Parts: sequence; C-alpha cells; structure tokens
Amino acid sequence: MSGKGLLVVLSGPSGAGKDTVLKSLMQNEPGVRLSVSATTRAPREGEEDGKDYFFLSCPRFKELVENGKMLEHAEYCGNFYGTPSEPIEAWQAEGCDVILEIEVQGGAQIKTKRPDCVSIFILPPSLEVLEKRLRRRGTDAEEAIQKRLAAAKSEIAQAMHYDYVVVNDDLESAVEQVAEILRTEKLKSIRNQDFIERML
Amino acid sequence: MSGKGLLVVLSGPSGAGKDTVLKSLMQNEPGVRLSVSATTRAPREGEEDGKDYFFLSCPRFKELVENGKMLEHAEYCGNFYGTPSEPIEAWQAEGCDVILEIEVQGGAQIKTKRPDCVSIFILPPSLEVLEKRLRRRGTDAEEAIQKRLAAAKSEIAQAMHYDYVVVNDDLESAVEQVAEILRTEKLKSIRNQDFIERML
Repeated sequence: MSGKGLLVVLSGPSGAGKDTVLKSLMQNEPGVRLSVSATTRAPREGEEDGKDYFFLSCPRFKELVENGKMLEHAEYCGNFYGTPSEPIEAWQAEGCDVILEIEVQGGAQIKTKRPDCVSIFILPPSLEVLEKRLRRRGTDAEEAIQKRLAAAKSEIAQAMHYDYVVVNDDLESAVEQVAEILRTEKLKSIRNQDFIERML
Repeated sequence: MSGKGLLVVLSGPSGAGKDTVLKSLMQNEPGVRLSVSATTRAPREGEEDGKDYFFLSCPRFKELVENGKMLEHAEYCGNFYGTPSEPIEAWQAEGCDVILEIEVQGGAQIKTKRPDCVSIFILPPSLEVLEKRLRRRGTDAEEAIQKRLAAAKSEIAQAMHYDYVVVNDDLESAVEQVAEILRTEKLKSIRNQDFIERML
C-alpha cells in the first residue's frame, strides 16, 4: 500500500482545543510531524530556527513565494508569514504525515494548491461550551471574549469546506478520530493506484 | 453529529475473503446490517423470505424496477436478481450501516444511483496468494481455477473506481480497517451539514 505520508490541514476556532488535540496526537503517533512556518520577523528570546519558525530575510521569503515554494503566505503587522513547501514534501516522502495548523483563509489557499491534502476542522461541542472555555481562561476582557466568539462563528461557518469535522467533546476520542482519519485516508484507492497496478 | 447510517458497497474477487471479513465485522459491530437481495427464482429447501432473499413474483419485481425501487438488478439463468431500496433506506434511517456485498457491475450501478454510498474493494495481498487460496479450497478443477483467476484480475482492475481498498492479509486488521472506514465516513463534513448549521 501507499508509503507516502499525508498533508493534513487542521483548523478550528480559538477554544475548540486544536493545540491540545495536536499535542496528544503527536505523543501517540510517532509518524506525525508538525509543519514549521517561515517568517521575516526577528527571532524572539529562546526561539529556534527550524523549530519555532524558519527565520528568513525579506528577499529570501519573496524568492520562495515567486518560485512557488510557499503553500500559502500572508502579511501581519508588517512581517510576512508563510508555509514553505519543501520541508513538508521531504517529510511526506519519508512516509510521515505532516500537519499544518492554520486559520481558515490559509487552509483554503492550501486546498487550492494541494488538492490531495486532507482537511480537518475541530469543532467545540456547542457555542455555549466554547464561550465557557474562553471565559475559563480568565485572560480576556468581556469585549475580547465577544470578539473571539464572533470570530469563532464565522470560522465555524467555513467547516463545510473541510473534508472532516471532529467534535472535541472528549479529548481522547477526538484524538482517536483524527488518528483514524489519517489511517483510513491511506486506504483511499486514489492513493493506492500504484499498488493495484503492480498487483496486476 | 449525523445519526443516519451509511450505505456501503463491498466488492472483491472470489478468494479475497469478503465473506470472512463481513462475518467477523457483523460480530464486532452491532449497528451493521447486511442488505437482502430480491429474486424471482423459487425458494430452495430451508431458505427464508426476507432473510436469504425477498422472494418476489415476476410482475412484482418488474413493478419495483419501473418505480425506481431497485438500486440495481440483473438477469441470471432466466431469473431476476436485484437490490430493493426500501429496506435499505429504512435501516439507514434507524442509524444502521447497511452493507451490500455485490460484484463490480452491480457496484457501479449503485454508485450511479446513490453517489453518497461508500464503496470498499477487498483485495488479496497478491495474485499468488489468491491462487493459493483458490487451490486450497480443493473443490475446483484446474480449468475452473484458471477461469476464476482471470475473472479476479478483471475485477481487481475495477478497484480504482472504489473509494477504498482494503488488503485482506491479516483478517483482524482487515476487519478493523473496514470498521474504521465506517466510523470516519461519518465524520465527513458533507454528512454533518445539519449539525454545523444547528450549532450556528
């Protein structure tokens, strides 16, 4: 069967628990890698090149964009951020599944460039639970919470455009569902044409 | 999330072990049902109506075909065989996944009428293993074995048109793969539009 790893786009609103799901998934599944973004902003204290970000000069960043070697990119507060394709492809060739945690606009860009990617949207059980989770963090003022909730709603409306939705009610079962999606995607006949042809 | 059951088309060449996979799946998964075919041939000793087949008169069979209530049908040795859609839809509405074990031509007919179905092709690990399995049965003459092998090759060539391929090397893992396909198909966003809309 297919030995190539998958490219997985993972999105979901703040408070849905993407990070927790991802952290637990990485612990359970040794063949999963997390994509590293590139940025033109300066490294902060303790940040490591190639681990936290690929820290690039502005000309180098633009060169990668012009050569089609960024899967997506955007400007934020005067700095560029993007997803370099080469490290992802290298990991996939080694048989690793590469997960890209990204907001919905970036996710849509990637789906266009890499239609073979698997996209998963992490949902909260309900908007009420999401609101409770945001409040429990206790770090945000009321206004900020209302902003986050409004942003969450407009993000959730994009869930339809993802291949799969996983409800993060119980963490363990959400992680297992993501792991099962990765396993069954590898059983798709479209990913196993070589295997079928070799058999014949 | 979606409470409706899936319609699953399962095919594979003789000797791939479809029946064994199905039998074991039915034991492990209480929510899975096996579709019952309809036929115009007379019941044989011990056969039960509604269990082995739905035994129908010729006019009744044709009426179902004309009213679009057969998902597929074919004539064989002067008798009609087909798949009535109503019992399948009733089970799906109850939340059961309904499996239809069928050869590749019938599978293609169903995919046209029910594009929401999930199609799975059971493959042997290799043609050599398939040949060994056919010989081990010890019931067929050499000529019959060669015919079965040739038929298997032309069936396997159709595996590309199925959504998933499952290699039946180790029975337990093949059954688990089919069960995982059923679980993850229910996470597809297209099957959960109502859930997402209700959340918003």
